[in-house]
Amino acid sequence: MIDLTKNLAAVNRRAKSSVIRELLKLTNKPEIISFAGGLPDPAAFPREAVMEICAKVLRENAREALQYGETEGCPSLKAELVRNLREDEGLVVRPENILITTASQQSLDLAAKLFIDASDPIIVELPSYAGALQVFKSYGGLMVGVKSDDDGMRMDDLEVKLEKLKKEGEHYKFIYIIPDFQNPSGITLSQERREQMVRLSREYDVIILEDSPYRKIRFEGRSPDMLYKLDTSGNVISLFTFSKTFAPGFRLGYIVGNEAIIKRMAILKQSMDLCSSPFAQLVAAEFLRGGYYQEHVKKVVRIYKAKKDHMLAALARHMPEGVTWTKPEGGLFLWLRLPETMDGDDLFSEALKENVAYVVGSAFHCDGAGRNTMRLNFSYSTPEKIDEGIKRLATVFKKNWKK
Amino acid sequence: MIDLTKNLAAVNRRAKSSVIRELLKLTNKPEIISFAGGLPDPAAFPREAVMEICAKVLRENAREALQYGETEGCPSLKAELVRNLREDEGLVVRPENILITTASQQSLDLAAKLFIDASDPIIVELPSYAGALQVFKSYGGLMVGVKSDDDGMRMDDLEVKLEKLKKEGEHYKFIYIIPDFQNPSGITLSQERREQMVRLSREYDVIILEDSPYRKIRFEGRSPDMLYKLDTSGNVISLFTFSKTFAPGFRLGYIVGNEAIIKRMAILKQSMDLCSSPFAQLVAAEFLRGGYYQEHVKKVVRIYKAKKDHMLAALARHMPEGVTWTKPEGGLFLWLRLPETMDGDDLFSEALKENVAYVVGSAFHCDGAGRNTMRLNFSYSTPEKIDEGIKRLATVFKKNWKK
Repeated sequence: MIDLTKNLAAVNRRAKSSVIRELLKLTNKPEIISFAGGLPDPAAFPREAVMEICAKVLRENAREALQYGETEGCPSLKAELVRNLREDEGLVVRPENILITTASQQSLDLAAKLFIDASDPIIVELPSYAGALQVFKSYGGLMVGVKSDDDGMRMDDLEVKLEKLKKEGEHYKFIYIIPDFQNPSGITLSQERREQMVRLSREYDVIILEDSPYRKIRFEGRSPDMLYKLDTSGNVISLFTFSKTFAPGFRLGYIVGNEAIIKRMAILKQSMDLCSSPFAQLVAAEFLRGGYYQEHVKKVVRIYKAKKDHMLAALARHMPEGVTWTKPEGGLFLWLRLPETMDGDDLFSEALKENVAYVVGSAFHCDGAGRNTMRLNFSYSTPEKIDEGIKRLATVFKKNWKK
Repeated sequence: MIDLTKNLAAVNRRAKSSVIRELLKLTNKPEIISFAGGLPDPAAFPREAVMEICAKVLRENAREALQYGETEGCPSLKAELVRNLREDEGLVVRPENILITTASQQSLDLAAKLFIDASDPIIVELPSYAGALQVFKSYGGLMVGVKSDDDGMRMDDLEVKLEKLKKEGEHYKFIYIIPDFQNPSGITLSQERREQMVRLSREYDVIILEDSPYRKIRFEGRSPDMLYKLDTSGNVISLFTFSKTFAPGFRLGYIVGNEAIIKRMAILKQSMDLCSSPFAQLVAAEFLRGGYYQEHVKKVVRIYKAKKDHMLAALARHMPEGVTWTKPEGGLFLWLRLPETMDGDDLFSEALKENVAYVVGSAFHCDGAGRNTMRLNFSYSTPEKIDEGIKRLATVFKKNWKK
């Protein structure tokens, strides 16, 4: 057999499977209550709507649905998105500002491939989405972490990082941020910081990659403006997905940005997968056009809010003093902090023994910190499992408590 | 607005849209008869079968179809493929040898990303698929062209190229070949050369990337063995797609290779798009399981063979002496050669004036040669358009004839 070490590209010789991927494999046993994944609740899938829509698309438009499509995306889906972004977010975009993608992970891959050369510095939050960190690293990007607190990324620390590199004559390729119900923390960036951030982006001439998978899943409170809306200089690229507001099984998302960037990304996408599924795109277009989307989002919000409340109540009931957690206004995740003396990485195997799982906080920290933290998903498990799982987790903490 | 030249990764600063992409844009006008694309005939799409299957999948298995799936692919589809590869090709593979992809273009991207470092030499045919050359270049690969004739890639020239690099102490990352009804030439690699090629691959310890999108679309004659079948050392990676034997609109393909390579590719795919659409995968699994696939391939072969015969007859009827063309035993394309004195690149704008289009042969030549050649697609146009289009093309040649 071929000697792989001789044949692999340099970056892949050291590439490993992601921490989360390996951990998730351990949590697949049916007796384990897992808060580790990030899966939507399958009970919330719009199955009846999809059945109706698939039949309609194939009846009326099979020639477009089953054929190759334009790399940029199907015009009918882009037209629906233009309308939806205006009505929902007050964004003024044209079809030329939109690139349809094979869901958000491809959007991240596209952005990384377009901008990152080996050893380029990239700004990310502490903590940030592990799947994004993995992509940026796969192109040789070097992560620079910016501190965050209960209002999201700290703008004072961002400015320090931007200023430092500017003095050194270097340049950040982009800032990666999830402003709404962040993955992993569940925290939302405040309106004030959003305005500051867009100002800093202009001042330092740096691109913001705004990842918005959860924004529509808001349980309470009012949405701050999207960074894309606040920006007037074409510096913000926003990533959206249908995975949380429709269904992940179609693998569909979209990127909104200035036309020059979208054009460049379309050239790259062409060599990556030619086009995203026209069938899936026409189904999504009809999901939006027929008003199914609004109804479905309301249903998802109702279900996830109840589960989030359930998890918060279970945490309050079972957790020992010294453990704290975020109270997200939306999304799929919350973030749990143990005393600094404790180690969530070490506790993971103890948790598995008690048949409960989470994702270790260190996986989300580009600087290796966060070992006293963990991410808990509340969207997937049933209320009964949430209660039982949190109880088991509290038992693990109490058994292994270190002052 | 952001200064893109400062932000783009180095390889993208010089990246251009593909020649074919730009040419295809010019051929979109309804009055143009285009032999330029590579589209399946939409009249052949299995619409009724897809309607039945979509309803069945959503009725019986919506929770899997609409959810995220495993990066490696849905077990039920892989099980069907294991069976199908054994029955159709005599290949003995296990599920661990298969990676489901978002169609062949992603398979090419995966292989390129796994193996290619900037300035790595890659062996390709003269001519070869332009979309593959574009991907390999996007990772900085340097193409080395090997001559071909009516039996496909010439093994004597391949050995010369392999020997040369070996003497220089260097190593080819892989050989890229389309053995069946090649794109663009329509030529099939003979059984004897396949055996020689696998021998050379073992002798020089070099991977073969066997791209097989058209293999099932055989009109006449007997299929030589797949390179994958002839190989015993794990050096062959084979790429398959559902785009020609089912429908391109689902964006689904698969890679078959040794387990170590498939594992590595799965890690890369995870950061590229997490997984291919489980919905599309379950639909494809049922298409295979329910016996729709065999019926559909028979139908496609019948339709495309008639069109190929039609194009060959039209060429014989209209073309001036000195023009020659291949007579493919399958696939979607044939290859036309003008006298060396003539230039297909220059003639392209003349052809557009006569409302007929093709792809210039130079786009498929990594060495810039082939300017007296062109690719003609026969799968998409109706018989009437084929006849009229070939007549127009003959008119262009006669008007611009150079001895």
